[in-house]
Amino acid sequence: MQRHPAGIGSRTWVVADGYIPPRSSGPAPEMTSHDSICMLNAGEAEARVEVQVYFTDREPAGPFVLPVPARRAFHQRINDLSTPERIPPGTDYCLVVTSDVPIVVQHTRLDSRQEANALMSTIAFPG
Amino acid sequence: MQRHPAGIGSRTWVVADGYIPPRSSGPAPEMTSHDSICMLNAGEAEARVEVQVYFTDREPAGPFVLPVPARRAFHQRINDLSTPERIPPGTDYCLVVTSDVPIVVQHTRLDSRQEANALMSTIAFPG
Amino acid sequence: MQRHPAGIGSRTWVVADGYIPPRSSGPAPEMTSHDSICMLNAGEAEARVEVQVYFTDREPAGPFVLPVPARRAFHQRINDLSTPERIPPGTDYCLVVTSDVPIVVQHTRLDSRQEANALMSTIAFPG
Amino acid sequence: MQRHPAGIGSRTWVVADGYIPPRSSGPAPEMTSHDSICMLNAGEAEARVEVQVYFTDREPAGPFVLPVPARRAFHQRINDLSTPERIPPGTDYCLVVTSDVPIVVQHTRLDSRQEANALMSTIAFPG
Repeated sequence: MQRHPAGIGSRTWVVADGYIPPRSSGPAPEMTSHDSICMLNAGEAEARVEVQVYFTDREPAGPFVLPVPARRAFHQRINDLSTPERIPPGTDYCLVVTSDVPIVVQHTRLDSRQEANALMSTIAFPG
Repeated sequence: MQRHPAGIGSRTWVVADGYIPPRSSGPAPEMTSHDSICMLNAGEAEARVEVQVYFTDREPAGPFVLPVPARRAFHQRINDLSTPERIPPGTDYCLVVTSDVPIVVQHTRLDSRQEANALMSTIAFPG
Repeated sequence: MQRHPAGIGSRTWVVADGYIPPRSSGPAPEMTSHDSICMLNAGEAEARVEVQVYFTDREPAGPFVLPVPARRAFHQRINDLSTPERIPPGTDYCLVVTSDVPIVVQHTRLDSRQEANALMSTIAFPG
Repeated sequence: MQRHPAGIGSRTWVVADGYIPPRSSGPAPEMTSHDSICMLNAGEAEARVEVQVYFTDREPAGPFVLPVPARRAFHQRINDLSTPERIPPGTDYCLVVTSDVPIVVQHTRLDSRQEANALMSTIAFPG
């Protein structure tokens, strides 16, 4: 197995189009509408990831703290964050993801408000 | 809360695939087909954002001026721009977004012309 | 109007996931399944754009030559290229887009094989 | 034909949102839900590509070895990898793609769990 001791990626990532669709079609939790940050920590040290959430009309929320073990994938639905607060569905937001070691972040949304689901995804912006 | 005094990102961003789908299915405004630029100003100073719209067969339109407050998300549907002019649906265009402070721009389209909506998204190109 | 005399972007761009879905639902040409490269020439000189198409099991096709005027958007469906040859639907390919002046390229597919269309888009890779 | 002797791109690429949707609608194999890495080797030497798969709760799998000939496209469904093991559907993962010569990697998912398919795509992260 090829190892990447120092990790791969960046310590700062930005998602600018955050939004949790407020309704869903299909069986939960699989087809529940969600907005996710998918992260890879390819390095040999655990990552301490912090997520800050920016809104249109109030001060930012967070940090939401997520430990990502060494050599692990970690896909986090924004819907499921609860500490220090929950992110309301149907609300525009942006995310700044910071980590103490390099990681890679991809942003994906599944939107099942209408009968067949829609998907979108992009590698986040490495700040 | 972690602060980013100088902001994060770039002062120039490009969206090359601009298009407002000319029809919609589902309740307005939520499911109305739209093309959006989603912006984060993570810095401590208000951003003066200018959008220039390029077309296939005429000179560019704009600038459309959008102030984005410090530490705020700002998601702008291109459909809703009206000054100095409106962008017609069903027309190919590109966008150049400039800001006097660093921001991040993500481009997203919701297309509900057919019965279930489609989504696409990408971090714009930092020029 | 803000001008960008030297243009914005790169002279080489790569699209790795090329594919023209071989069937469509809905009125042509609007809802015809297609794979597109959407380009912006923000500069003050016409761009001479060349597209080379790479396949799985044969030598590359091209160049397809596309002039893009100064300060113009140009969205090209790969389906519509015909000189020096047509790109067959239902076939995997990749694109290398080169230009004599900086441009920006975004890759978008509309897939209407099933009843409601799907969309995907990404800024291409600046080589 | 324009040639790129040394290839174009990077030797390391990351996909952070890997997931094979566990069900499909429509005729196989075309409409089978899949997660793909689409690669271009624009250079004049064959590429030896290795894929390492990272999971949430176990050590990484791989390497999966894929030779990509010179001047060729190569689109690989993750569903179809079998040596040294198969990647289970319905499971979160991330990918690190390494190559001995520069290539470009784009990540695309077709999700046909519900009646009309959804699509997402992004250029991977060049590590």
